[in-house]
Amino acid sequence: MTREEVRKIALIKKDEKSLTWEELGKAIGRSPVYTAMLLYGYGQASLEEAEALVKVLDLPSETLRVLTKAPYRTPAQPWPPTDPFVYRFYEIVLLYIPAIKDVAHELFGDGIMSAIDMFIDLKRIEDASGTRMLISFNGKWLSYKKF
Amino acid sequence: MTREEVRKIALIKKDEKSLTWEELGKAIGRSPVYTAMLLYGYGQASLEEAEALVKVLDLPSETLRVLTKAPYRTPAQPWPPTDPFVYRFYEIVLLYIPAIKDVAHELFGDGIMSAIDMFIDLKRIEDASGTRMLISFNGKWLSYKKF
Amino acid sequence: MTREEVRKIALIKKDEKSLTWEELGKAIGRSPVYTAMLLYGYGQASLEEAEALVKVLDLPSETLRVLTKAPYRTPAQPWPPTDPFVYRFYEIVLLYIPAIKDVAHELFGDGIMSAIDMFIDLKRIEDASGTRMLISFNGKWLSYKKF
Amino acid sequence: MTREEVRKIALIKKDEKSLTWEELGKAIGRSPVYTAMLLYGYGQASLEEAEALVKVLDLPSETLRVLTKAPYRTPAQPWPPTDPFVYRFYEIVLLYIPAIKDVAHELFGDGIMSAIDMFIDLKRIEDASGTRMLISFNGKWLSYKKF
Amino acid sequence: MTREEVRKIALIKKDEKSLTWEELGKAIGRSPVYTAMLLYGYGQASLEEAEALVKVLDLPSETLRVLTKAPYRTPAQPWPPTDPFVYRFYEIVLLYIPAIKDVAHELFGDGIMSAIDMFIDLKRIEDASGTRMLISFNGKWLSYKKF
Amino acid sequence: MTREEVRKIALIKKDEKSLTWEELGKAIGRSPVYTAMLLYGYGQASLEEAEALVKVLDLPSETLRVLTKAPYRTPAQPWPPTDPFVYRFYEIVLLYIPAIKDVAHELFGDGIMSAIDMFIDLKRIEDASGTRMLISFNGKWLSYKKF
Amino acid sequence: MTREEVRKIALIKKDEKSLTWEELGKAIGRSPVYTAMLLYGYGQASLEEAEALVKVLDLPSETLRVLTKAPYRTPAQPWPPTDPFVYRFYEIVLLYIPAIKDVAHELFGDGIMSAIDMFIDLKRIEDASGTRMLISFNGKWLSYKKF
Amino acid sequence: MTREEVRKIALIKKDEKSLTWEELGKAIGRSPVYTAMLLYGYGQASLEEAEALVKVLDLPSETLRVLTKAPYRTPAQPWPPTDPFVYRFYEIVLLYIPAIKDVAHELFGDGIMSAIDMFIDLKRIEDASGTRMLISFNGKWLSYKKF
Amino acid sequence: MTREEVRKIALIKKDEKSLTWEELGKAIGRSPVYTAMLLYGYGQASLEEAEALVKVLDLPSETLRVLTKAPYRTPAQPWPPTDPFVYRFYEIVLLYIPAIKDVAHELFGDGIMSAIDMFIDLKRIEDASGTRMLISFNGKWLSYKKF
Amino acid sequence: MTREEVRKIALIKKDEKSLTWEELGKAIGRSPVYTAMLLYGYGQASLEEAEALVKVLDLPSETLRVLTKAPYRTPAQPWPPTDPFVYRFYEIVLLYIPAIKDVAHELFGDGIMSAIDMFIDLKRIEDASGTRMLISFNGKWLSYKKF
Repeated sequence: MTREEVRKIALIKKDEKSLTWEELGKAIGRSPVYTAMLLYGYGQASLEEAEALVKVLDLPSETLRVLTKAPYRTPAQPWPPTDPFVYRFYEIVLLYIPAIKDVAHELFGDGIMSAIDMFIDLKRIEDASGTRMLISFNGKWLSYKKF
Repeated sequence: MTREEVRKIALIKKDEKSLTWEELGKAIGRSPVYTAMLLYGYGQASLEEAEALVKVLDLPSETLRVLTKAPYRTPAQPWPPTDPFVYRFYEIVLLYIPAIKDVAHELFGDGIMSAIDMFIDLKRIEDASGTRMLISFNGKWLSYKKF
Repeated sequence: MTREEVRKIALIKKDEKSLTWEELGKAIGRSPVYTAMLLYGYGQASLEEAEALVKVLDLPSETLRVLTKAPYRTPAQPWPPTDPFVYRFYEIVLLYIPAIKDVAHELFGDGIMSAIDMFIDLKRIEDASGTRMLISFNGKWLSYKKF
Repeated sequence: MTREEVRKIALIKKDEKSLTWEELGKAIGRSPVYTAMLLYGYGQASLEEAEALVKVLDLPSETLRVLTKAPYRTPAQPWPPTDPFVYRFYEIVLLYIPAIKDVAHELFGDGIMSAIDMFIDLKRIEDASGTRMLISFNGKWLSYKKF
Repeated sequence: MTREEVRKIALIKKDEKSLTWEELGKAIGRSPVYTAMLLYGYGQASLEEAEALVKVLDLPSETLRVLTKAPYRTPAQPWPPTDPFVYRFYEIVLLYIPAIKDVAHELFGDGIMSAIDMFIDLKRIEDASGTRMLISFNGKWLSYKKF
Repeated sequence: MTREEVRKIALIKKDEKSLTWEELGKAIGRSPVYTAMLLYGYGQASLEEAEALVKVLDLPSETLRVLTKAPYRTPAQPWPPTDPFVYRFYEIVLLYIPAIKDVAHELFGDGIMSAIDMFIDLKRIEDASGTRMLISFNGKWLSYKKF
Repeated sequence: MTREEVRKIALIKKDEKSLTWEELGKAIGRSPVYTAMLLYGYGQASLEEAEALVKVLDLPSETLRVLTKAPYRTPAQPWPPTDPFVYRFYEIVLLYIPAIKDVAHELFGDGIMSAIDMFIDLKRIEDASGTRMLISFNGKWLSYKKF
Repeated sequence: MTREEVRKIALIKKDEKSLTWEELGKAIGRSPVYTAMLLYGYGQASLEEAEALVKVLDLPSETLRVLTKAPYRTPAQPWPPTDPFVYRFYEIVLLYIPAIKDVAHELFGDGIMSAIDMFIDLKRIEDASGTRMLISFNGKWLSYKKF
Repeated sequence: MTREEVRKIALIKKDEKSLTWEELGKAIGRSPVYTAMLLYGYGQASLEEAEALVKVLDLPSETLRVLTKAPYRTPAQPWPPTDPFVYRFYEIVLLYIPAIKDVAHELFGDGIMSAIDMFIDLKRIEDASGTRMLISFNGKWLSYKKF
Repeated sequence: MTREEVRKIALIKKDEKSLTWEELGKAIGRSPVYTAMLLYGYGQASLEEAEALVKVLDLPSETLRVLTKAPYRTPAQPWPPTDPFVYRFYEIVLLYIPAIKDVAHELFGDGIMSAIDMFIDLKRIEDASGTRMLISFNGKWLSYKKF
């Protein structure tokens, strides 16, 4: 059983049981986004997390071994992305990141924001302009080493 | 004079005058990130903004006309990106956005986060784990219309 | 069951029952084009719409859950397109849109026509030159926000 | 002098003289969109059109010969498009055209909408939902011939 | 049943029955090339044509509905083409068509040869230089319209 | 001086002198299409042909050496092609050649039509359906050898 | 049954029977390389060759019809090639062929080495430098024709 | 001065002096093909070779330093190749090398033919079938090592 | 049974039996990395190695024949790579290898490090900076030969 | 002045002064590989490093500002790589890294080897098999964080 097959089964089970990511996250003590990433195949579950997911989603026992392995991370989507929700983020990276990089180097010097030691947060906001989505990425700053 | 030429001249002038994006942002009353986006060619400056930028950066007068036009937005970088700072964001969109999209639709229903009516914020954080970068995107939620 | 599988089944059922998009549109109170988009997987049906479609097309009950979810939008065709009908539109975007964009910015300033809040209309016209197709796109204008 | 060079000079002259596409269109008796297409290099100007454009834009005389030749049509933009205004149209062709094609064949049988004998129209609309852009394409229907 | 499946079955049946395109063409009153195009999925058969093909090739009755629909035209080969017979034509378009286009515009002005209203003819010739293949394309000339 | 530079100069000179391909072809005793191919860089001119072209077009003497060398053949156009005249031929090869190949093998057995020993002919036809373009390719048939 | 399926079955049968290309070649009176090309799908077997191959490899009778048809030649490998043995040849064509072409035109004038009327030979050599592979291609020279 | 610039100058000088690769090869005691590879930028000339080439071709003294450096090997042609002479070799690698590889492993076991320790030879042959080109590659066989 | 199928079965068996690469390597007297390469399909196992692997992993007997053949090497991953572990190495080759090549040529002259006669070693290191991975490649140096 | 221009000038100066990377490395107290990476544009020099490089290479003073900025890292080579030295490393990543990744996760769990905090070392070795190149990469291990 591959990570892609586990993803497929888990998403169907989640739909059938009408569970939200919020609820699944609570079941393993993680955020909704991280929990979704885990089932999409972008993380190595601890044994406790995997057992809780198998139980709450009623997954086949074989998925336990797969969920607790370090995955080979592959996209769960075509590339370049075709869905308008996703493309808007792609557009941001395509166009605006060089400007952001420039500002970041003024704040931090040469280096990168880690995509390994990084937390993602997603919020719904209502204000005068209507409904807004606020998404933030919080990653460790890594400086280039000399040798 | 093209947007790409204005970008090049403006970045050289900024370096020669040792101006930061923070300082340039103050000169036009905008955030550092938005100000960088403007000079990189990702926005239509108001006349006041353009005049302030021309003055503080000592740009050729011809740039005024260019800065106040609606630009054709083109990447200021090769694609797919090759710089490690940029690639980490590309990696996030490539791998994790489908999981994020799933969580977002639970919060908002079908639709997208606008990349037009959107604010970007960048912060430096120091905590127990060391230095961290916090970047957030705040965009209007747009729902699909039926017809 | 995926969106792609629902699309396939729905199109076969439509053929077998000799139903037109016009008739399907009437069944759910939407235009023929929007109705086709819904079954191709480019929209989130309301419960009423989904139930009407399942009934009139005699679809398996499992399709109800799929039709009412926010879809990941993927092309129902190879890309770049190979069908001559489709390629002509591709050609228009490839060649003529920069000129159209220029005219649009004179009318609207910097911004875009939304592809989310947008209606599509398709008509057959007979005139002295013969038969003509008239297709129109009516989308909300979105202006870039400063920050 | 190439079509690309004529395009570049003409656009600069248009900016310097603060002429709109509306005004240029009137000068040659064509619509603003067609006039923009002509200067972008997507049409063969009649001698009268070319002379009027050379005069009103004060173009070098050498451009007359270029404007009246049948052009090799090449995109005035990178591809796939990177500008958000253009990408939204690309997205429409990528995703929705197969559904539209299906509806069109119900109205017309097998064939295509010509992109050669085709008129483009662009309008600004204000209604309760705010400002909207209405763009329409009106093309001759061409049926496949048997042999 | 898709067009691709109909193509596959039809080609196998044709082989098993040792029918030539010449013979199939006669059965429906069309040229061998057009008949091949029809079974490869590049045309909408009239009811008479479809019935004759189903009969002579002993095709499943379900193919009738497929053959009489307007198809989405997709290549029956990898692309760029890898077969030497096909590649030679690809090479001609890649290299020589700009020169041919130039000559054509001298004869016709701006426009294109239609690939919709077009006949293809294929002949075997024996002359002093040996065996030769003569292929010709006869298409309606379409002139660009102004607006 | 490269083949590409000779092409550019020759086309400008041809325009300035208002010479047609018909006339240039007569000057060297070749067909208009072959003559265009020669100046576009798709042939090795004999000394007589090169001298005649240099004379009638008033080309720099350095072009003589270039025209009489065996060229490295490169496209005089972007690829895939973007011009609608050219794309229609590309579409024919993309879609219809596998069907044509099938018919050809019935006539000739396994092999290819040579694109080296091949003549191209282009004609304007007026008939009841209007103006038509007739283009034909006449190439030696080459059979695969066994070893 | 496709050429690709015949290839697969034939290679398995060859392994199971521990037959070499040398031995298969002898069975049909062809060289080992040509015999391999035939079973890989790069040739039209004569009836005698096909019958001999079917017999010695114990192939299903249906393969006879496939082996004696003119094939559509498709690569039996990913592209660009990933296997180091194959890549070294790809590297030679990528880098050194323009230099070889230059030398060839000095020997032959403008034209090409045919890849249709061509023999391939492969030898193992032992000399002072160790084991060496000698591969040669012997093809008819084809000169461009004028018209 | 880059390798590409040295290539360009050297080829022009060779033409102006009407020197053949045969003659240049003799001047440095190497084969015509190797000599062409050296000037195209695919080898590190010894000091003696470089001095002889500079002298016989009358190259600028600066080229000496460039010719005696280990080059970064880049193609002197577009890729995939567009010239018919080159494409025929590309076609051979694309289609036939997997069959050749199979035969080679029967002769040699697992490994590759070196493209570093390799000699290329090119000959013109006249026989009953006409003029033929014979090209051979003679490379050291390298076996995979275990560890 | 293909190399890809053997890889899949072997990896599942290894997981089910909770065997490490260290243990598998010991079973055949090879390093863990080489052993992994063998089962991934990047080597020709000796009969002893294959028999030991079949035994310890309890593989189907058919795998013996596959493991002892020279493989066609294909990637066991998408390309460009999407997994962050793999991408970091891709990034190193993309960006830093030209600088490394320059240093290498100072040490060795023109040539390459063999990827055929090459050993790979992987170590875990703990030092003041934390945990580190040390990976080394040890390959025979091959010098270009003249001819 | 761009990073690419600084790279070009620095490499020419290094050649003209016959300085080795060894010597340049000593001048700034860094390894030869790191020094080469700095001048190729893959690092932000400290002021001391930049001043020492400017002095020893006699670079224009303007390079000081460029060398001390955080660079946008772009490849100094075509991609995919065409030089055989570089391609061999590309081949290793393409084929063998998934096997290496598997071994690494057994040693370290889920995570990556940093390409930011990483040292590269290059050595020449002479042993019984001849000359060998030993290259090693020593990078900090980064574990995925949960949230």
